[in-house]
Amino acid sequence: MIVVMKTSASERDLQEVIARIEQFGFATRSIVGSERATVSVLGAPLPDSLQEALERMPGVEEVVRITKRYKLASREFHPDDTVIHVGDVAVGGNEVVVIAGPCSVESEAQIIQTAHAVKAAGASMLRGGAFKPRTSPYDFRGLGEEGLRLLAKARAETGLPIVTEVLSVADLDMVAEYADVLQIGARNTQNFLLLEAVGKTQKPVLLKRGMSTQIEEWLLAAEYIMAQGNEQVMLCERGIRTFETITRNTLDLSAVPVVKRLSHLPIIVDPSHGTGKWYLVPSMMLAAVASGADGLIVEVHPNPDHALSDGSQSLTFENFSAAMPKLARVAEAVGRTVRAPQMEMAAD
Amino acid sequence: MIVVMKTSASERDLQEVIARIEQFGFATRSIVGSERATVSVLGAPLPDSLQEALERMPGVEEVVRITKRYKLASREFHPDDTVIHVGDVAVGGNEVVVIAGPCSVESEAQIIQTAHAVKAAGASMLRGGAFKPRTSPYDFRGLGEEGLRLLAKARAETGLPIVTEVLSVADLDMVAEYADVLQIGARNTQNFLLLEAVGKTQKPVLLKRGMSTQIEEWLLAAEYIMAQGNEQVMLCERGIRTFETITRNTLDLSAVPVVKRLSHLPIIVDPSHGTGKWYLVPSMMLAAVASGADGLIVEVHPNPDHALSDGSQSLTFENFSAAMPKLARVAEAVGRTVRAPQMEMAAD
Amino acid sequence: MIVVMKTSASERDLQEVIARIEQFGFATRSIVGSERATVSVLGAPLPDSLQEALERMPGVEEVVRITKRYKLASREFHPDDTVIHVGDVAVGGNEVVVIAGPCSVESEAQIIQTAHAVKAAGASMLRGGAFKPRTSPYDFRGLGEEGLRLLAKARAETGLPIVTEVLSVADLDMVAEYADVLQIGARNTQNFLLLEAVGKTQKPVLLKRGMSTQIEEWLLAAEYIMAQGNEQVMLCERGIRTFETITRNTLDLSAVPVVKRLSHLPIIVDPSHGTGKWYLVPSMMLAAVASGADGLIVEVHPNPDHALSDGSQSLTFENFSAAMPKLARVAEAVGRTVRAPQMEMAAD
Amino acid sequence: MIVVMKTSASERDLQEVIARIEQFGFATRSIVGSERATVSVLGAPLPDSLQEALERMPGVEEVVRITKRYKLASREFHPDDTVIHVGDVAVGGNEVVVIAGPCSVESEAQIIQTAHAVKAAGASMLRGGAFKPRTSPYDFRGLGEEGLRLLAKARAETGLPIVTEVLSVADLDMVAEYADVLQIGARNTQNFLLLEAVGKTQKPVLLKRGMSTQIEEWLLAAEYIMAQGNEQVMLCERGIRTFETITRNTLDLSAVPVVKRLSHLPIIVDPSHGTGKWYLVPSMMLAAVASGADGLIVEVHPNPDHALSDGSQSLTFENFSAAMPKLARVAEAVGRTVRAPQMEMAAD
Repeated sequence: MIVVMKTSASERDLQEVIARIEQFGFATRSIVGSERATVSVLGAPLPDSLQEALERMPGVEEVVRITKRYKLASREFHPDDTVIHVGDVAVGGNEVVVIAGPCSVESEAQIIQTAHAVKAAGASMLRGGAFKPRTSPYDFRGLGEEGLRLLAKARAETGLPIVTEVLSVADLDMVAEYADVLQIGARNTQNFLLLEAVGKTQKPVLLKRGMSTQIEEWLLAAEYIMAQGNEQVMLCERGIRTFETITRNTLDLSAVPVVKRLSHLPIIVDPSHGTGKWYLVPSMMLAAVASGADGLIVEVHPNPDHALSDGSQSLTFENFSAAMPKLARVAEAVGRTVRAPQMEMAAD
Repeated sequence: MIVVMKTSASERDLQEVIARIEQFGFATRSIVGSERATVSVLGAPLPDSLQEALERMPGVEEVVRITKRYKLASREFHPDDTVIHVGDVAVGGNEVVVIAGPCSVESEAQIIQTAHAVKAAGASMLRGGAFKPRTSPYDFRGLGEEGLRLLAKARAETGLPIVTEVLSVADLDMVAEYADVLQIGARNTQNFLLLEAVGKTQKPVLLKRGMSTQIEEWLLAAEYIMAQGNEQVMLCERGIRTFETITRNTLDLSAVPVVKRLSHLPIIVDPSHGTGKWYLVPSMMLAAVASGADGLIVEVHPNPDHALSDGSQSLTFENFSAAMPKLARVAEAVGRTVRAPQMEMAAD
Repeated sequence: MIVVMKTSASERDLQEVIARIEQFGFATRSIVGSERATVSVLGAPLPDSLQEALERMPGVEEVVRITKRYKLASREFHPDDTVIHVGDVAVGGNEVVVIAGPCSVESEAQIIQTAHAVKAAGASMLRGGAFKPRTSPYDFRGLGEEGLRLLAKARAETGLPIVTEVLSVADLDMVAEYADVLQIGARNTQNFLLLEAVGKTQKPVLLKRGMSTQIEEWLLAAEYIMAQGNEQVMLCERGIRTFETITRNTLDLSAVPVVKRLSHLPIIVDPSHGTGKWYLVPSMMLAAVASGADGLIVEVHPNPDHALSDGSQSLTFENFSAAMPKLARVAEAVGRTVRAPQMEMAAD
Repeated sequence: MIVVMKTSASERDLQEVIARIEQFGFATRSIVGSERATVSVLGAPLPDSLQEALERMPGVEEVVRITKRYKLASREFHPDDTVIHVGDVAVGGNEVVVIAGPCSVESEAQIIQTAHAVKAAGASMLRGGAFKPRTSPYDFRGLGEEGLRLLAKARAETGLPIVTEVLSVADLDMVAEYADVLQIGARNTQNFLLLEAVGKTQKPVLLKRGMSTQIEEWLLAAEYIMAQGNEQVMLCERGIRTFETITRNTLDLSAVPVVKRLSHLPIIVDPSHGTGKWYLVPSMMLAAVASGADGLIVEVHPNPDHALSDGSQSLTFENFSAAMPKLARVAEAVGRTVRAPQMEMAAD
């Protein structure tokens, strides 16, 4: 942390800043330049309250943080890539992992049929929401535990691990009983109590970026989970809110190489929420893998124009099957693999 | 809802759109113009899933919603202003209500002293956080129930009603036992389970706008609370996230007259979070009242440079006392009043 | 400028950074902390290219600028408020200056009638566009020089100084011949050639903030004008582009006290473009003055629903006349004045 | 255009809206639903002023535009892809075109050396700025005509066509004399006079998206050029301004498939400005091509840490040469080609 003094600051202002830092228990080094003085605070971690205290003092122009606020999530302190194992799927390794399925679980037929279809096309995991956050109180909010049971049935039939959202601490035990990966949605990226609760489980977590979350804040959200002992966090870029209205969000693919540089955690991309339009999804699936993403999470529905939620951004089985071979070619072009399309075995 | 057909749409595309809408149980009227056809859907409320279904159909260019998605919060359906009574304070009436206090309750001395000071300067309610959401897991998160007890003690001494944040459904009963107004913070504006839970209480709610929440979404969040039977919702503008970095957020004061036009609910402004800098707060207090706000919520701390949170945006007692007479003059200029500064009576 | 080294940086990395800075001719001071080293660069002004060079070097984590990039526009180097005189109007003094008039000059009757009406209500200057930037090539773009002549005629009749936009260097001489204040529009805030050209005139300039211009960039735009010798720059906040779609822009009133702190230049607010809705304009006029603005620029039209541009954000004469007495009361509440409504004298 | 009436609108309000539209010369069709009436305006193109007029009328809730405001740039009216020929390079065809070179032309050695290096690595065109827009008046602004002469010399030596920015109408003839493609920079996307001026030339234009330009506005900017008779417009996505600060801009790759759907014009991506960090550029080059871009424009400099501008986002020759074979593989994966690396012939 560096305290930048005003050009008009007095020697006494400077001495008081130094004294205040020392009260907090940190050492200082000050430099008097031609225009102004600066004071460096030595030590870490430095609390926000120190910054706030210094910003108010007479003669202080601004206080600049130079150390990162996250540590467990940081590549500086953990240089090697983290690989997370979910059943026989490794997230963060050479294989690009494709997670696919409907926005919401709506019926047994819908989820079982989708699970078979996405597995056949090369998906490695099944997504599906049983608890849905909806902007309007008048919209469908998921089947609840019945939805979880149907997901488990789809897993039993196809062997695909399940990714599903947990909305609240109260539901966590129930969701964790069924899920292979706990999804934290974009509206809960900074629901810190929920982050800590999933941090106390041993389940892998898929942590979506909030719609106005800066990358540093997103990594701090991961830090909340990791600080509780659960280091199995996969980050998920799903678009940020901007002034552009043609797309539902602006998918920030540069976040992929940024996260790879700052953190050791795997990163997944959600082109369905990222764009909000099914016809943009295939292009952005390819672009995400080319940018270095470790996986994708894609909405697929047997009949999107009858979907109870997110119909406008869901791929049909045909769209998804058509996209996967192209994805495999792009993955190969960047030195990675995608699971081959397969005829799945019924579980019974 | 209006379906805009492509210029290239066929007659058959048009007929299928009409059939699909009728399947949902709604009547239609179509208009064939010189360039393209449009189909109006008659009836309300129209589900999101209808819009999503239509957007995918062949020949459809776009689907435009023309009805509002909220009703209980809407002035169209409730023309008169809502006034919310908290003790002897009326929010949404002629008096501009000033809520003041520290970001976090830190100690008995701090909160009691602040309560007296802000009451003396003309505040009508006391704010203070016992449960604090913090971006970093390494920062101070509030005293919990002990903080609530200290707030209650401050209320007993000064008579000021208490506004405090509830972070989770699990804590709600406890917080509601102490609080006069339940605050929903900006990170929970779309925590729909929490909204419904406070909707089931009979406590007034102060609902902050999320940092990337559009005004329509904010009113839908209020709708969640109201749909559970609790109509005592005060909205609170606290700044939105933009590209500008000098201020912590961009305080959107035009939201005040927008909300007044669209809704009957009272609106409060938080210039402390809205700017993030204590030296900008007094100007924005005045501007908020001039824009038509029904109240303010302002961070005040006995010694901001020793605050455990938000020190850089808190006013000192002196700053706050100096701002209040100016506020009274501006309130009077727009035909409203502010509570006069007063010598409070100890509650004993 | 401070160079923050990586925790993994070697002593050699550090020495090379120091050597590179010295090549640019600047002195350094380095501090080796517990986690990492930092190097301060002494001297000013420091070129962007130094920052860019250092950011690429091995072992460098980031480079943080601590000195401001503008000087002439800065209050640090020019503590006293600048007051700009336009005829008998002083911008930046105690009087809140109201500039009013139509978006575009459309006819002699329209501009003359408007000039009389706004003067009668208390405006001090007349605005009107003769050259209009329009998003679509198919919209009305102003009357050109004929519009300037009509503005001059309105000035001759009412004595009101004229504020009008200059769109290009090619038109500058012509516009400057008629205008009292040259307006630089939001799309030209970073049209640096135009800024320098108006900097070479002796005319006061009203410099609008661009729709995605940070305050620092806006002050650098003012610096462009001032560096050519013209220090008569009034800044104009007119809303920034955000994710909110109900308003045309988000009016950033906190920019008013921010600019007052960072700069000595006067600041004007444009609530018409800032909101895009006439019914929000009166509230935001009051809020702007309460926030500390030195003036307002407001669109007024005799018959806005027949306006050739910006009809939806223009006030009628009645709206404007009704707003002005309220404005005077708010101005008085913050210790300032507004020109009294007056019966104007015809000039001949 | 559809006029949505308020639920409280009277029959007379409705009749006046219809009369107003007819005054403008357009036919109407009205629909009275259960909650409210709507009026469709038939005909095209509909002026902004009609929308603005209607928005103000009593009983009107909102006015929704349903027709596009651009026509020449629209795929609806021009279904086939436009291919633009620059020398032997075809932009918008099967080959992914790579434009590379320094931000600014700095010296003969620098530009000639770079031209040879980028050609050898597979670039098809050379970029280089002779006139540079700079945020601060104290930074390097290019060599002017001398820079253009050096670019021409580099073209003579390597055969690479030249892409260079034109900043103003005054410079256009001079720049057009040397350039093969005229670049309109992000600060000039809505400099309508400059757009019309390049529209009157016969030179291909590379039109960058402004940092806060919506896609519709960008296509309207293209429309300005095309309306003057020059249909050779290539669009260039270069990042938009958002709340994220780690990257210089947020590269909006979903704009690529959006533009492909809405328009027939080719689209190029600039990952250098789009990210602002050289180490993010290679990943985003690959992602851009995977998303469907017709080309890339990339900053390459012999010695970026000595560059006079944009050093932090420029690739070295080695970085660029290393990225190109990967790019070729990704292009092939999506069914396209990249020019093979080549040993160029000196022109003499």
